[in-house]
Amino acid sequence: MSRETAAAQNRKELKMKDRPLILVTNDDGHRAPGLRKLIELMRELGEVVVIASEHSMSGMAHAVTIQTPLRPRLVCEEDGYREFVSNGTPVDNVKLGKHSVLLDRWPDLVVSGINHGSNASINIIYSGTMGAVLEAAIDNIPAIGFSLDDFSHNADFSHLDSYINQITQKVLNEGLPEGVSLNVNFPKASGRPIKGIKVCRQAKARWVEDFEERTDPYGRKYYWMGGKFENGDGRPNTDEKALEENYVSVVPVHFDFTAHRFIDQLKF
Amino acid sequence: MSRETAAAQNRKELKMKDRPLILVTNDDGHRAPGLRKLIELMRELGEVVVIASEHSMSGMAHAVTIQTPLRPRLVCEEDGYREFVSNGTPVDNVKLGKHSVLLDRWPDLVVSGINHGSNASINIIYSGTMGAVLEAAIDNIPAIGFSLDDFSHNADFSHLDSYINQITQKVLNEGLPEGVSLNVNFPKASGRPIKGIKVCRQAKARWVEDFEERTDPYGRKYYWMGGKFENGDGRPNTDEKALEENYVSVVPVHFDFTAHRFIDQLKF
Repeated sequence: MSRETAAAQNRKELKMKDRPLILVTNDDGHRAPGLRKLIELMRELGEVVVIASEHSMSGMAHAVTIQTPLRPRLVCEEDGYREFVSNGTPVDNVKLGKHSVLLDRWPDLVVSGINHGSNASINIIYSGTMGAVLEAAIDNIPAIGFSLDDFSHNADFSHLDSYINQITQKVLNEGLPEGVSLNVNFPKASGRPIKGIKVCRQAKARWVEDFEERTDPYGRKYYWMGGKFENGDGRPNTDEKALEENYVSVVPVHFDFTAHRFIDQLKF
Repeated sequence: MSRETAAAQNRKELKMKDRPLILVTNDDGHRAPGLRKLIELMRELGEVVVIASEHSMSGMAHAVTIQTPLRPRLVCEEDGYREFVSNGTPVDNVKLGKHSVLLDRWPDLVVSGINHGSNASINIIYSGTMGAVLEAAIDNIPAIGFSLDDFSHNADFSHLDSYINQITQKVLNEGLPEGVSLNVNFPKASGRPIKGIKVCRQAKARWVEDFEERTDPYGRKYYWMGGKFENGDGRPNTDEKALEENYVSVVPVHFDFTAHRFIDQLKF
């Protein structure tokens, strides 16, 4: 190797080393357009490793795979980019990403999404996208979940680039407090420009389920679960309100389930 | 029917109607000894409906089944008692229990467990047992998760009766604040008497994963996920500390993930 080539190589290595390692995952599976968009945006900001699920893991929440082994496989390798597909859940994928089996160092940032569908309000608790984010936060890895309020496979993600860039750069530069991660939701593309970013709280909303009864060809009953979303939270600073008003909602979230205010009231 | 028989029938109906309807579920599956124990205890306190999963749903967290239909089937019916087995997750089972497809009224209480293994500290986030409890709380149904710090299938549950009775009766009589449910964990049977009940906070602990690499007969690598539990929380009033000191830990929990303290600090 000539001295010039060696110097160039050194510069390149230094540059690669200085670039943050970003782990990208989601819950809609490795083919989802939302994941592809997020990968494209992250590759501008750092070295990227994708660990995504083979199939949709929507609604898998914080589930982990304990009864079958995990089978991540490398499907793409380029300069500063590796992509794995796994049979695990989003939380499994983050766990794999912290380990020497796939990566030689921990990621500097975990991003998950862009989810096809909102994860605002109570949706966070069912969300595999946000399960991955909370899992990273348990290990103090800064993490952001991005979701678009549009369930369609062909959802329009074109209005999100500058916001994803801004939020990600901020977290890369400043980090996040211990155990805190971000639940970012975007309003559906409407032609109207997004008004800005609102930092807000999780709305108290819920799904009112509805079961459709059917009978299979063998005479046995089965039920399809459906539901209607019901937001009864009238407070001004909620994520649902922000989305309704065409803002990006950012909720700082944590994994402490304790209802602290009730500790002193509860006596045995 | 004679007047006496009719009166007796009326008294019986009134008594049944006055008895609370208790929905029992778990995540270890319908055959788990911990579930059987909980059913036995609950039948002393009210009318009982069990909706439990066919197979173990351990580690399924708040997962919901959205890609396949649910197939609950009645496997036992006696006076004041019905038992269903379903192919769904613990959260699905609670959703089914709120619906006219199986029950004609909402349960007055949801209890989940007794889990074979602790759900204290960070274990709550992976727990199907606690997923069921949080799901009930979303709909303002009082709910309690009971877990024993012993993973064994043949765990000794004999030291828990009076505590489960006391905690359940209290919740039946007094209810719980809106959106709050209880994560109750018991120390493993040790011969030493349990010291009492401590109302406490979720400890900040985590699992440090470990992946064991193997090669299948076809030459492909796969990984078994294992892990070591690590509690770095030295605060005095945590659930882990209570268990360590041979107390029953009771953590009031909610489903608001917002890190409220960080809302004002985060600026865009």
